[in-house]
Amino acid sequence: MDSSSPPSSTPFGIDNIPFGVISTRDNPAPRCATAFEDHAVDLSCLEKDGLFASIPGFGTGVFSQPNLNTFASLPRPIHAEVRKKLVDYLASADISREEQQKSFILLSQVTNHLPMNTANYTDFYCSLEHARNCSEVIGLEVNPNWYCIPSCYNGRTSSLRISGDPIRRPWGLEMGVYVSKPLPAGQILDMRQARDHIFGLVLLNDWSARDIQAFEMNPLGPFHSKGFGTTVSPWIVTMEALEPVECERVVVQDPRPLGHLAWRGVSEREAIAVELSAKILRNGKTYHVTTTNLNELYWTPYQQLTHLASAGEGLCTGDILGTGTLSSSRVGPTGEKIGLACLLERAIPRNMLSALKSDGIVFLEDGDEVVFEGWCRSPHSGKWFGFGECRAVVLPALDLREV
Amino acid sequence: MDSSSPPSSTPFGIDNIPFGVISTRDNPAPRCATAFEDHAVDLSCLEKDGLFASIPGFGTGVFSQPNLNTFASLPRPIHAEVRKKLVDYLASADISREEQQKSFILLSQVTNHLPMNTANYTDFYCSLEHARNCSEVIGLEVNPNWYCIPSCYNGRTSSLRISGDPIRRPWGLEMGVYVSKPLPAGQILDMRQARDHIFGLVLLNDWSARDIQAFEMNPLGPFHSKGFGTTVSPWIVTMEALEPVECERVVVQDPRPLGHLAWRGVSEREAIAVELSAKILRNGKTYHVTTTNLNELYWTPYQQLTHLASAGEGLCTGDILGTGTLSSSRVGPTGEKIGLACLLERAIPRNMLSALKSDGIVFLEDGDEVVFEGWCRSPHSGKWFGFGECRAVVLPALDLREV
Repeated sequence: MDSSSPPSSTPFGIDNIPFGVISTRDNPAPRCATAFEDHAVDLSCLEKDGLFASIPGFGTGVFSQPNLNTFASLPRPIHAEVRKKLVDYLASADISREEQQKSFILLSQVTNHLPMNTANYTDFYCSLEHARNCSEVIGLEVNPNWYCIPSCYNGRTSSLRISGDPIRRPWGLEMGVYVSKPLPAGQILDMRQARDHIFGLVLLNDWSARDIQAFEMNPLGPFHSKGFGTTVSPWIVTMEALEPVECERVVVQDPRPLGHLAWRGVSEREAIAVELSAKILRNGKTYHVTTTNLNELYWTPYQQLTHLASAGEGLCTGDILGTGTLSSSRVGPTGEKIGLACLLERAIPRNMLSALKSDGIVFLEDGDEVVFEGWCRSPHSGKWFGFGECRAVVLPALDLREV
Repeated sequence: MDSSSPPSSTPFGIDNIPFGVISTRDNPAPRCATAFEDHAVDLSCLEKDGLFASIPGFGTGVFSQPNLNTFASLPRPIHAEVRKKLVDYLASADISREEQQKSFILLSQVTNHLPMNTANYTDFYCSLEHARNCSEVIGLEVNPNWYCIPSCYNGRTSSLRISGDPIRRPWGLEMGVYVSKPLPAGQILDMRQARDHIFGLVLLNDWSARDIQAFEMNPLGPFHSKGFGTTVSPWIVTMEALEPVECERVVVQDPRPLGHLAWRGVSEREAIAVELSAKILRNGKTYHVTTTNLNELYWTPYQQLTHLASAGEGLCTGDILGTGTLSSSRVGPTGEKIGLACLLERAIPRNMLSALKSDGIVFLEDGDEVVFEGWCRSPHSGKWFGFGECRAVVLPALDLREV
């Protein structure tokens, strides 16, 4: 973690303005919201009050929808205008005023829902460290094709779960990238435009059942071992919010990517710096598992998205891609690896996960809760903003014999 | 093929009553329809005219929806009631009567749309003959796990295309199974109930790009090689229509399936007999490729659906599963294998596909059109009913260098 740790206060300050979907006990209809400090702010109320009425092309009832697909599919300049209106509004908001009370709801009082309606869920395998470690564990080299294209598989769309929902029977710390602007099927994405198709990011836990994965994945890849549940954090942090933490890439790509995957962006900032951490809660004790960063990805989200569409599949608003487990090569003060983001990597020499083993943490057990956090630090203001939490408890497996 | 070949007349006689979604030039809004002989019959018109009003629990506007999800999710007895009303209505319909003209539209005059809104698309690999042949081609044995669980992978939902839409670059003859009644996530399906969750069947062409498949599928399975397009026939033939052709299984399962996949149905009729054929049209010539039958599947659709839900994934109305390429062990009069349903199998000795090679058909080329047909013969009436066609032309690949 950076020398200046994130604060213990809110991830949802004025630099963030994330988007999510909420319902409340008084109003069980899911609708769009932003999170500001300790509150969810009901955007359907603010829209009805006319806050966005002066934005050309905004439409009506955008935030009354049960997902963010309509809003996400609006042109990027409208996202920027909405953000500006919200920043102005929230900076001067006074929750003691009666008319504002109805739209401000304590975060602890809302139910979060999946933020987008997703047609396609694709999961990648793009951390070189992770790939090397997994290969070492099973006694093989990284497959040569890994260096040619971003390795991925289609996930099961309906396996997506909102943070907090328990998961029945294991994990990889990664992030989810939601698509905004669609790409018609049959068209190919120019990587210079890839950023314009990304609405924002969430934390993503692609739960994995290692006991069945090796058994089932030859030859068609993982199915049940990855398909039983994938948890996402409820608040999408937008590309607008992330702009200050865009940065140069950290991992060198060797060999050089194929032409259509070679970075030809408008700037050198082809990576995004999100400081990530994971912990396991077991029997009232907290076990810190890893600290890593999105910017250590070998294949960036822009390359992933370009690859995804390169056979003419098209992109739909709401599609989500998982970046793949984000392991880091970073070492702690005593030289041990502290950035391994998958329990499978514990067999690697001198790492923090090996220490967990002495605490009895080998694989996840029933009742364990896994919590991811993600934080960004604006290099301009020095302030931190974040993703909140992505968390879920592991429930026991169902007993097939009872069927 | 059976000694009594299907007629060259309509697949959509009174024994069928399939369901699909159409639009017309006069009314571009997609709505539900059935196909009867040479006509599509607009079910939204018949519903407005009150044909289904007396059915308890039917609801309103069911057939004005742009997909069949609402109808498919209704209880099975309602499907049976609707079928009965339609059989009575169509048997006595007189298209010369003016009020019936508006609901009868020549099939050649309608545009077909994907019949269901699909969240999850899963593709299986379940024909023993196909698995043996593919393994033989690459010099390996069938993987031992193949015999333990139905092998499958998650497809890309938005790759689903309606029959007739061209596909950019390349097949396996199989069928699609659409889900009707949903199963909540976390629940497991008892195979005795599996049939109740199936709305009906379509023909399905899971186009495969063999040039990239072997390269990309280690370790996460196929992605682009299978994800660029999957064609389905537009008319779902219901389980009600298929009841007369349910039959005993043809292929013995050895070893015996695991407990939850062992057949414990209400009858011995655990398979479905659908006679299938495929042809390639190239330069004005027709090349007959294969004849096979759905009932030669090693893992039945009931076992596939039960496996699919066995890790608690749940099922959504509109989900589709591909049965996997359906190769048959049948031989022709001169002893050659005539039931190989995938061009990859042409390396098998003495088969009809080898003969195609001498005609220049090795892999599909740009401009080739692939047409599947499926027919059923009622053992009671001796009459044939069918699935219509599943067809698409192969377009040239896009040139990545143009991006």
